[in-house]
Amino acid sequence: MKNFNKISVTGTERVELHDKINLTGAEISVNVLPAGTGVPFVHTHKQNEEIYVILEGKGYMTLDDEKIEIEANDYIRVSPSAKRQISASSDTPIKYLCIQVKENSLENYTATDGVVLQ
Amino acid sequence: MKNFNKISVTGTERVELHDKINLTGAEISVNVLPAGTGVPFVHTHKQNEEIYVILEGKGYMTLDDEKIEIEANDYIRVSPSAKRQISASSDTPIKYLCIQVKENSLENYTATDGVVLQ
Repeated sequence: MKNFNKISVTGTERVELHDKINLTGAEISVNVLPAGTGVPFVHTHKQNEEIYVILEGKGYMTLDDEKIEIEANDYIRVSPSAKRQISASSDTPIKYLCIQVKENSLENYTATDGVVLQ
Repeated sequence: MKNFNKISVTGTERVELHDKINLTGAEISVNVLPAGTGVPFVHTHKQNEEIYVILEGKGYMTLDDEKIEIEANDYIRVSPSAKRQISASSDTPIKYLCIQVKENSLENYTATDGVVLQ
């Protein structure tokens, strides 16, 4: 497998990156919800932690029994078992990444996994 | 541990999210490089795949023997062993996420890991 893959994602259609850039440790989707709309179901996960990265706009998430406001520059970690749903606000679209990773899969990182060469 | 954590990240200082929002399957850093600057070293990883998400601006990456141009809306997967270095362009800053995940750690995702409740 090539040592890297690159893709440009623009537009408003949902794009799932796993197969497009050969991800092996994550699935990342790029999503846009028009103003006044939301994902039409609540879901949980069996194994995966999700991290939502809010890129543009604002909206809200329901996480179990809590409803929180979200906006650009917010990062939200969600445990596998949490019941979650995300919506745009009534007057503003929202663009976000949803990053799925296996809970507790990261062993080392940065200083303990990186090797500085020069 | 709480079922979710949320943080807002603005400004130009590097922020590492792992400990701030209790990530267990990834480390995510938020980075800004001023125009004309770059990370001052080349590095590889022992175990971790990295995904670079270019949020704003433009620049370039050196990946082993290739130098590629990057700009907002680009997503780049980098294998652990690839020698990598990232820079802003000479006249534009670059803002990006670096997502570290353990290579080959994702087992199921989306339809095979998600559970739709309603």
